[in-house]
Order: sequence, then structure tokens, then C-alpha cells
Amino acid sequence: MSNLSIPIAVDAMGGDHAPRREVEGAALAAEEFGISVLLVGDEELLRRELKRYSARHLPLEITHARQIITMEDDVARSIRQKTDSSVHVAIRLVREGKAQGIVSAGNTGAVMAIAKILLGTLPSVDRPALAAVFPPLGGTRTVLIDVGANVDCKPEQLRQFAIMGATYSRLLLSVSDPRVGLLSIGTEQSKGNELTREAYQLLQQLPLNFVGNVEGRDLYNGRADVIVCDGFIGNVALKISEGLAEAIQHLLQEVFETRFPPSKEGESLPREALEAFSRRVDYSETGGAPLLGVRGVCTICHGSSNANAIKNAIRRTAEFAAAGLNEKIEAELKKLEIRVIPRHRGRPAPCA
Amino acid sequence: MSNLSIPIAVDAMGGDHAPRREVEGAALAAEEFGISVLLVGDEELLRRELKRYSARHLPLEITHARQIITMEDDVARSIRQKTDSSVHVAIRLVREGKAQGIVSAGNTGAVMAIAKILLGTLPSVDRPALAAVFPPLGGTRTVLIDVGANVDCKPEQLRQFAIMGATYSRLLLSVSDPRVGLLSIGTEQSKGNELTREAYQLLQQLPLNFVGNVEGRDLYNGRADVIVCDGFIGNVALKISEGLAEAIQHLLQEVFETRFPPSKEGESLPREALEAFSRRVDYSETGGAPLLGVRGVCTICHGSSNANAIKNAIRRTAEFAAAGLNEKIEAELKKLEIRVIPRHRGRPAPCA
Repeated sequence: MSNLSIPIAVDAMGGDHAPRREVEGAALAAEEFGISVLLVGDEELLRRELKRYSARHLPLEITHARQIITMEDDVARSIRQKTDSSVHVAIRLVREGKAQGIVSAGNTGAVMAIAKILLGTLPSVDRPALAAVFPPLGGTRTVLIDVGANVDCKPEQLRQFAIMGATYSRLLLSVSDPRVGLLSIGTEQSKGNELTREAYQLLQQLPLNFVGNVEGRDLYNGRADVIVCDGFIGNVALKISEGLAEAIQHLLQEVFETRFPPSKEGESLPREALEAFSRRVDYSETGGAPLLGVRGVCTICHGSSNANAIKNAIRRTAEFAAAGLNEKIEAELKKLEIRVIPRHRGRPAPCA
Repeated sequence: MSNLSIPIAVDAMGGDHAPRREVEGAALAAEEFGISVLLVGDEELLRRELKRYSARHLPLEITHARQIITMEDDVARSIRQKTDSSVHVAIRLVREGKAQGIVSAGNTGAVMAIAKILLGTLPSVDRPALAAVFPPLGGTRTVLIDVGANVDCKPEQLRQFAIMGATYSRLLLSVSDPRVGLLSIGTEQSKGNELTREAYQLLQQLPLNFVGNVEGRDLYNGRADVIVCDGFIGNVALKISEGLAEAIQHLLQEVFETRFPPSKEGESLPREALEAFSRRVDYSETGGAPLLGVRGVCTICHGSSNANAIKNAIRRTAEFAAAGLNEKIEAELKKLEIRVIPRHRGRPAPCA
């Protein structure tokens, strides 16, 4: 993280437990990593909240925003009518160079739309995409892209997702030659739906380490470093994973509590093992999903994020900014534009 | 199970470990539930395999089939060229009334296609669908339909899936008024993709307990009894769930083995708890996925099915047949055809 002095802007009003978790997460990031944070939201509320932490020595500041976009707000309307929302103000700080990037646990649709409008997209990108990193159960931290920024995608978009995802994996996860897979329902090229069959052709032509179709189970066995899919599928995949991991944790607790009542001697041992397990499947360790393809660093977290998730998202956002991820993505896309066979050839020149 | 004397046909040659697991599963089903089974495949091989069990007293018989469709076989070609395959022979037994239903762990695409061709679809069904029952982590056994029989579905197909799924939940899982959800990426009606937004309108009009959009996580928290989706999404969802559940079991074993080395006193306690847990998330307990909408009972299992999965699939298949599931689905669809607003109105009559 090269530039710790330029702060990360945190939309402190968006999450389900705002501003408590956001402020706590910011304090943790400042304390543990020395990252400067601009907390954006209702000044009085944030000042009160900050008092809960011995934060005077920490690099935390507040920028006032008088409006809040809620989870229930209509995205289109809130973008137009709440232009002084904490999301708007935080993203403007990024546009003006006063913040290196933004973290929000607010209304995902609104954050994505405002980021696209205020920051703009990279010249070679049709549609920005959300990239999520899955917990490394199979030893590999697999990137799934897109997890919800776009639905009803075109094959060309999946091609761009592949390039953005591979650049992300290389720069942020230090994978030297990421294996890129296409999420489908069978490994053979002919398997899948209309979208994946067409996208397969395009991905094959890229100078990437394309490993062909992968299946749902391959998110967890390390078969690919980057998995590309339509945002509808990706969002369902992410939420199933989170839901199942949570359900399994509850079930485990239940099973173990029946067998190891707290009074029993040695009860701390299984508990400790359970906690070690929980940390491994915990999505809050992965630190939110970056919106790749916009001109600026924007990380989107779950509405239900805890302070740990916010803290990790702030750290990741600082890493994105330091790595110059967007510049590298743009360069990669430009380079490849020349190499890949153009999809839409121009009309033949008129006969002389 | 009313009619134990008519056997269930088991394609004994299809699975990854055929015919060993199929024969063992059949022997278990015969032993535990008294179900008669016709093992279909290479007679000599099956006879040899049967010798491993003290099966003389069990209601097991062999029907010879001289060909095998492998997982690698091209579906279209194998349907035409291997008409004496164990799949063909087993399904013909169902068509001829010599078997109540068929269980196969073979090439899913081939089994579905051959079932559709040889058995035909119910008059009111456009496209048969695979229904999977998820492990009851949230207390509810949720049915996901379709998990891979159809891709690029039309809204009308999702309407039929809803009716078939609800009938299944009512008859086989004893849910009196199943809550039917539409798998999407947000609970609001406007969220989702083109398909789900159109399907929402159709599902709303059905006289079913439609609970609106549900999300990936709702597969595990009991919010719906039946969840409807396109087969591409459903297949990805199922495989993610299986993959994650498996990965978590491995991880747990690893975590506990580090902390409870076998020599340690009391080591059987955590092991026992782990086993109790494994049974709860085990997909082999759910007994395969029925192909709903064909004229006959056809259950499709994973290629990697173990004997327990085959045994449970045989039991479920006997239950399907006994419940007259297909007849009930047909009656339900017919009844609803009259009630729902027709989608394609005829052309306006020409002016007089």
C-alpha cells in the first residue's frame, strides 16, 4: 500500500447496521493497517459513534452527507433525488482525488449505478462487473465474475469479464498465469446454454490460460483461479454459498452443543476447532467485491457486513488503488482488442 | 408402496462405479424395504457381482442388455446407435409395464432423452424437468426444479415447473400447501432478469401459494418448499451446494484431526458428532432427482452415486409410482389450464 496518506472513503450510512459496523471497521483498519479513512455520513451521528473508540490518535475523519439511500429505496429515483447521499458524496471524493477508493455496504444497485455515472467506465469496458473472491476451501482463492452487476449478459461481456478477472487474480492474488474457466453445466464445449456456447468461442481466442467449461463444484476444488459467468448466475452462486456455509455453521453448533454440553470437561476443544473452521469459511474475510471496469476503486460489501468485513474491504480497497488495478485492466483490454478477431467486422468497402 | 411385486428397473451399467454400486444399492433396497429390482445390464457381469451378496433370498432379477452408454458418449449418437443399451432396455421395461419405474446413474443427457422418446411427455407438459430435494438444513426439504433438463427456458416452462414442483412437494413430501418461490437476485418483483420478470407475472396468476422471488440463500433457510428456476441455474446451484458441502466436510475432518489426534482420549466423541453432521448434509440421502413430466417414473442419480444413494433412489422411485405422481401432475396442469389466463390469445377475428 504505497499511498497511505490519501484516505479511503467509507459510506458509513448504507449497511444494515449503519453506522456502527462501518465506524468500527474503519477504526480497526486504521488501527491494524494504518490506513486513513474518511467516514461519510451524518456528522453528528458519526461523531457520537466515534466516541466509542479511543480513536483520537487514529487517522479517521468525517465528511458530512445529509441524505441516506436505504435498501428499500428505488434505485433510479434515489440516484436523481438524493444527490447529497453518503454514496454520492463518498464517490465524489474519489472522483476529485480526495479519496483513493470507496467502500460501501449500502444498496448495491444504487452504489453501482452512482459509481458508473460519477466515475464513468474505462474506455474499453462495455459494462463494469462485480468480482467476488471465494474462501480458499480447495486451497485456491477463486474469483467469480460477475456476481450481480449485469443480467442477461452478451458473450462479448463475458469476454471482458475474463480479462478483468484474470488481471485481478494476477495483480491482487499474485497468481502468475490464472486459469480461467467458464461456468457451465458440463465440461464439454457443447454443454451449457446459448450464452456459454458463444462465450466459449470468444474465450478460446483470448491469450489467456482458458481451461474451458467448469461446473458449480469447481468453485471449491481449485480447478480454476477465475470463473466467468452472467451476473444473475454469479449472484445466485454467491448467495447459495453464503447461505449454505451459514446453515452448516448453525447445524454444526447444534450438533456439537448436543454432544458437548458446556458443563462437560474439555468443552473448549471442540469449540476452538469449530471457530478455526468458521474462520476458514467466513465470507467476511474476503473483504467485499470490487466493481471492476469503472474509473476509480469501488468496493461493495454485503448490507449485513460486520466490522471485520468492513475492515478487510478497506484494506483490499487500498491494495486495489496501490496496484493500479484499473489502469492495468484498461491496458490489458486495449492490448487484446488488437489481438482478438473483431466480432463486428465493418461493412465491406463499396465497390470502386 | 402399494405394489411391491412389480419391480423397479435399475440401469446397472451407467454410473462411474457400475455395476458395483448399483448392485449393492439394489441389494440394500431389496433387503431393507422389500422392493423387487430388475438389474439391467451385462448378464454375466451382474451375475458375478450379485454373488458378493447373500442375495439368493432377495427379490432381485437380471435383464440382459448388451450395450452400455458411457459418460463420454455423444448423446444424440448413442440414442440412435446403442438401442440395446442398459438405459434403453430399462426404460422399455417401464413402457411395457414390466417395471414400475427406472433408476439410472448413467449419462444424464442420454437418460433424459431416451426417457422422453420412449415414454413420451404428459399431454400438458412442454418439457419435462428434473426436481432435486435439498438436505433439510433449515428444517424444510426444499425442492429445486429444474436442475438441468432444460436450458434457455421460456416463462411458460417455469409456470409448468411450479405446478409440477408443488404437486411433488404435496404428494411426496407431505407439504399441504407448498410455498412456491421464484429463484432470483432480489426479493422485489422488479429484480431479476428478463426470464424471471416475465415468469413472475405467470406464477402470480396461479392458484398456488406463490411467495414471490427468493434468493440463493433461501435454499437453506426454509423460506420456500419449492423453488423454480431455469435448468442451467438449477444445475449450477445443485453442483455448488454439493461441492461446498463436500469441501466443508473435508475441511472439518482436517481441522478436527489436527486437534483430536486419534491417540487422544475421548476422540470418538468429535468423530461421532462429525458423522451426525455428515448425515445431515449428505446428498445421497435424498435419493436422486425424478424427471417430472414424462409418462413413467424415471429417477436420475449422480454418476458418482454410492450404494446408499442408489438404495434411496430405488425407494423414492417406488414411492413416486405408488403415489401416481405423474397422473396427479397431469390432472393439476389440466385443471389449471382452464383457470389461468391464456398467454397466446388467438388472432382477432377478421372484421365481418
